[in-house]
Amino acid sequence: MDKKTTVALLLVCPDTNGIVSNLSSFIYNNGGCIVDSDFHNDHQHGFFLGRIEWLLEGFKIKREDIKERVSELCTPYNGKWTLHFSDTPIKVAIWCSKQDHCVLDLLWRNQAKELGNAEISVILSNHPDLKSKIDNFGIPFIHIPMNKENKPEVEQKQIELMREYNIDVIVLAKYMQILSDNLVDTLNNDGRTVINIHHSFLPAFIGAKPYHQAHKRGVKIIGATAHFVTAQLDAGPIIEQDVVRISHRDTVNDLVRKGKDLEKIVLARALRLHLLHKVLTYENKTVVFE
Amino acid sequence: MDKKTTVALLLVCPDTNGIVSNLSSFIYNNGGCIVDSDFHNDHQHGFFLGRIEWLLEGFKIKREDIKERVSELCTPYNGKWTLHFSDTPIKVAIWCSKQDHCVLDLLWRNQAKELGNAEISVILSNHPDLKSKIDNFGIPFIHIPMNKENKPEVEQKQIELMREYNIDVIVLAKYMQILSDNLVDTLNNDGRTVINIHHSFLPAFIGAKPYHQAHKRGVKIIGATAHFVTAQLDAGPIIEQDVVRISHRDTVNDLVRKGKDLEKIVLARALRLHLLHKVLTYENKTVVFE
Amino acid sequence: MDKKTTVALLLVCPDTNGIVSNLSSFIYNNGGCIVDSDFHNDHQHGFFLGRIEWLLEGFKIKREDIKERVSELCTPYNGKWTLHFSDTPIKVAIWCSKQDHCVLDLLWRNQAKELGNAEISVILSNHPDLKSKIDNFGIPFIHIPMNKENKPEVEQKQIELMREYNIDVIVLAKYMQILSDNLVDTLNNDGRTVINIHHSFLPAFIGAKPYHQAHKRGVKIIGATAHFVTAQLDAGPIIEQDVVRISHRDTVNDLVRKGKDLEKIVLARALRLHLLHKVLTYENKTVVFE
Amino acid sequence: MDKKTTVALLLVCPDTNGIVSNLSSFIYNNGGCIVDSDFHNDHQHGFFLGRIEWLLEGFKIKREDIKERVSELCTPYNGKWTLHFSDTPIKVAIWCSKQDHCVLDLLWRNQAKELGNAEISVILSNHPDLKSKIDNFGIPFIHIPMNKENKPEVEQKQIELMREYNIDVIVLAKYMQILSDNLVDTLNNDGRTVINIHHSFLPAFIGAKPYHQAHKRGVKIIGATAHFVTAQLDAGPIIEQDVVRISHRDTVNDLVRKGKDLEKIVLARALRLHLLHKVLTYENKTVVFE
Repeated sequence: MDKKTTVALLLVCPDTNGIVSNLSSFIYNNGGCIVDSDFHNDHQHGFFLGRIEWLLEGFKIKREDIKERVSELCTPYNGKWTLHFSDTPIKVAIWCSKQDHCVLDLLWRNQAKELGNAEISVILSNHPDLKSKIDNFGIPFIHIPMNKENKPEVEQKQIELMREYNIDVIVLAKYMQILSDNLVDTLNNDGRTVINIHHSFLPAFIGAKPYHQAHKRGVKIIGATAHFVTAQLDAGPIIEQDVVRISHRDTVNDLVRKGKDLEKIVLARALRLHLLHKVLTYENKTVVFE
Repeated sequence: MDKKTTVALLLVCPDTNGIVSNLSSFIYNNGGCIVDSDFHNDHQHGFFLGRIEWLLEGFKIKREDIKERVSELCTPYNGKWTLHFSDTPIKVAIWCSKQDHCVLDLLWRNQAKELGNAEISVILSNHPDLKSKIDNFGIPFIHIPMNKENKPEVEQKQIELMREYNIDVIVLAKYMQILSDNLVDTLNNDGRTVINIHHSFLPAFIGAKPYHQAHKRGVKIIGATAHFVTAQLDAGPIIEQDVVRISHRDTVNDLVRKGKDLEKIVLARALRLHLLHKVLTYENKTVVFE
Repeated sequence: MDKKTTVALLLVCPDTNGIVSNLSSFIYNNGGCIVDSDFHNDHQHGFFLGRIEWLLEGFKIKREDIKERVSELCTPYNGKWTLHFSDTPIKVAIWCSKQDHCVLDLLWRNQAKELGNAEISVILSNHPDLKSKIDNFGIPFIHIPMNKENKPEVEQKQIELMREYNIDVIVLAKYMQILSDNLVDTLNNDGRTVINIHHSFLPAFIGAKPYHQAHKRGVKIIGATAHFVTAQLDAGPIIEQDVVRISHRDTVNDLVRKGKDLEKIVLARALRLHLLHKVLTYENKTVVFE
Repeated sequence: MDKKTTVALLLVCPDTNGIVSNLSSFIYNNGGCIVDSDFHNDHQHGFFLGRIEWLLEGFKIKREDIKERVSELCTPYNGKWTLHFSDTPIKVAIWCSKQDHCVLDLLWRNQAKELGNAEISVILSNHPDLKSKIDNFGIPFIHIPMNKENKPEVEQKQIELMREYNIDVIVLAKYMQILSDNLVDTLNNDGRTVINIHHSFLPAFIGAKPYHQAHKRGVKIIGATAHFVTAQLDAGPIIEQDVVRISHRDTVNDLVRKGKDLEKIVLARALRLHLLHKVLTYENKTVVFE
């Protein structure tokens, strides 16, 4: 079943009667076989959020016409909807700095086919350190040195590279630079999604050196958070979080070491869910259809 | 929204096209407002499993006719289905022995309205120890002493009491007697559900004294398991499990103490999910629509 | 072994050579049998933190002389030390408001002998709601109504009651009032320890309505934190924390419900560790010798 | 502090008075500075288990004489003891088959200096698949094809290679062959430790295809277990375990994918603890001084 092409429709809109019925009847009446469906009614805010996935094989509407027909179906609901064919590759760029654990982990998972239909097109870094390790994976590694003076130019270069590679998703895999508002806005306006891993259990320890903050505060558990990037630092919709227990015997270095395992897993889970089109955002939150 | 009466339909059947469409259209076409829906397609075994819940208010089919109309809708799918009105109380009996933590916890949760529409009708015990504590809750406590000789008579008495109180769900809250096959079969044939809490992470440490077994084996994590009771000991469909970390410093008594917290929470979660009609069973497994 | 009286010595001091040797030789040379010992060297701050527990039986120094002899032993280390006999009851007061789950849980655990040698002497509340439930346990319940105007008088009354009952440990079991700086200082100066349960994973969501904050922020995990109370709100040394996973399906009410289980367990664990003299504080953090 | 050479002494013996005093006085009286110490008294079985670590710098006994002096100190206790200098490399061999996740993870952690003073000397595999990936790390990869007929010869070859490379620790990193009793005994008699990762929460799902077993049984949580290898399959002392939650939506493939993350982390934690000399075994269990 995994190998067959599927179509996934995601819809967020004001809640009203008949949405599930209309969506599922559209598929059924056109010969479609649903393989997965998940719906959520947010009664507090009056939203419907749904995801429905069906086999392309046997569906009577031609592939090239599906988008238009779905548009006719969904437009009346005054929400936002997206449509995804599982055989369409999703172009991913990874941005990193000096730390290798997240970027190597993602490259390994991509080889292991854990990241859906991802196509990791390019790795960007503001440091040259990881070049040789990444070269083993045969993916272009572009090093753009950055300092306070050239940051605007570098960001312009980054925007252009994302356009050149036609990137869908940018993963900040321990990219230790704060993105300017202009950079975030331009990437988003270009239709690109940006996912970041923050090395704390947000909203605790926003900003720099969260493990040092956690150690000083004496918490008994540390965490990591993967979130979509919006202009406000560390405040975008959270996709996934996880935690690990620590004790007084753990130094800051131990927190960093334990945290690396968290960061890898949380980022990979979040990216996978996004690449499988299982994440919807609304009201600065996410619905994750696991 | 919580207070309004809802109707929940659960269906397990061989998978085929159009089920979601038919179920949701039935509700929509009769003016129903879906408040929650969740579907699962088990591609390995070819099963469809679904739960759909809608407001009774505004639904055009009269309450007394809904069951028949749903029967017409679902019978063709050759599966099993159940229908539940949220304002119908569910009669619960709790069976216990000497340990108080699970039964007191359930009584407390019932007062706190955490157990859906449960009506705890009677407490049975083979020991008198907990009588005074349970009397505080104003629920009948029936003590039936049991020994090797009178076990068949006691079980017959238990069957009759369940009939007398018209019990829907029996909770074995640390009831430290093994139910005979005849008892299990009769309760099930009478249409009653039996839920047990086992004090291990099943299938590890089946049978007696699991904490002693765990301590001897030197595991680093212990667990608890809530499951439906079938004739085979500790082998029924698992509803919920949870675990807690232990270390070499923990004695068997520490395991027992830590385990009690697990047992309470796991049993309460499982019972709550069942009372909210969120659990489906098939192939000796459960689907839990959380 | 559990039943025999033990002596526990806790010491925090600047680290230097020979401390473990001197402490353990003092016990050995006086015929003592160590039943538990745990030491920690904080190399970052240059502290030694230790706990050593031995049997009173067989120890050649008379019970009434032990304190003086330990003082001679420990004073040269220029730190702080405390000495505890396991058969000395620890007088506990629980302060609560309207919510019953934490206070009832502690009373139940006390009956089950899970709280070491605690003697729960009195329950204080600013609301009358829980009186009848607590009366079942035969512990005095004192209701002192509080409003903006009478807060200083009420706090003075609270201080006096704690003196009258000679309380060692005050547990804020969902006591929904902020303690004034004067109250905290006076209780601490009187030699009383105050432990609070905060319904979030501190330092996330400090202050009021943390579950509402968590729901709005869209976190995927919620937590609870037990900490010693100092004058600064929610900023005292953390004793214990735990977390539970949530999803988009959970409303604020679900967070409250799931959180209650966390709050009970985290508070009970923290109190138990404190009552067993397993918690040391320094640098606004705790060392927990589990 | 991390960089300075330390000496670690581990002792298991029948419990008696004065052990901590004698050990710590030996160090203190010879000018040693303790950096870490942890003791455990198993009252059930009457064992003392301890670990004490001190700086070599400043210790007045010459490095080459320490072992003899410690022998004089510990022999009277009639237990077993080991002595470890932190600057002595520990020679590690990794055995694997076709799956790359555990072996690559260990190689990456070794580069990141997470595995103490490990020196990964050789990788053995019964399949050639991973050669090119491992070649990137510059470690010898030896492929020895195995089938039913040549298993005894291959095992003899494995024994010889371990001798040739003078290996201290063998890590079975998803090595999908059962070791014969003779192989296990010979490796152990040669003084080598063998650590295995089993892809279940032992003792649940011993043997082959644990993820299939777990899926069929319908458990809600899966686990992984790292243990020392003894002649009896999957029954050696457990060093570390961890778990992850699953749901009815997870197929066997999902369990395998989620399990891989568990396996990597659990194996790495266990190996790290062993390489830092923090694990003691007795009574087929471990004491882990974390």
